Amino acid sequence: MRKVVLADKFAEIREHWRPCVVGTLNGQHVKLAKFRGDFVWHHHADEDELFLGVRGHFRVEFRTHVEEIGPGEFVIVPRGVEHRTVAEEEVEVLLFEPVGTRNTGNVQHAVLTAPPYEQL
Amino acid sequence: MRKVVLADKFAEIREHWRPCVVGTLNGQHVKLAKFRGDFVWHHHADEDELFLGVRGHFRVEFRTHVEEIGPGEFVIVPRGVEHRTVAEEEVEVLLFEPVGTRNTGNVQHAVLTAPPYEQL
Repeated sequence: MRKVVLADKFAEIREHWRPCVVGTLNGQHVKLAKFRGDFVWHHHADEDELFLGVRGHFRVEFRTHVEEIGPGEFVIVPRGVEHRTVAEEEVEVLLFEPVGTRNTGNVQHAVLTAPPYEQL
Repeated sequence: MRKVVLADKFAEIREHWRPCVVGTLNGQHVKLAKFRGDFVWHHHADEDELFLGVRGHFRVEFRTHVEEIGPGEFVIVPRGVEHRTVAEEEVEVLLFEPVGTRNTGNVQHAVLTAPPYEQL
């Protein structure tokens, strides 16, 4: 029951594409991540996923269309829908998704797959 | 799979203390609300609740302590914990909580209790 200051937590994140857990509620995780570059195309079989822009601009690409996300904007990716995130510049993003969600979903990637439970 | 711009949605909110649903995922709602004044003390028997500050400063008061929340800061109120929100100025707040959560929790309030499903 202590507040979390997003800026303080982002300052601790060194690696791109490695979401860190900053809160847990109702079986869901609040995660923070820094993105830069192109992520891998993937989907999550059983999890919907929310991306909220905090700093910088990035894209959430679907096979059908692209959403450009800036600070104060979010998009929800429903389960089963293939997507990837792309950031030309380093961006800071808040994610909301079920506990245990793997960042690369159905894909096991040698570099990009991150542990789902890293707490900050 | 279209983005939501928080500022656009907040511009549509006229009433204080009346959360509006702007997203649904994994059985959870993303809600936006404007607070001003003192809310009623209450708890939620079965729901944890997250308050993320978007504009302005407000307090989340517990019986044990108070958290001051500004933009880019959040606090999670665990189920069963009595709390109230207080805003000296009008503030804009994002909430994450399970579908069906009533804003006044265990309390039925003639003025403050809002319908849990108002979609914006």
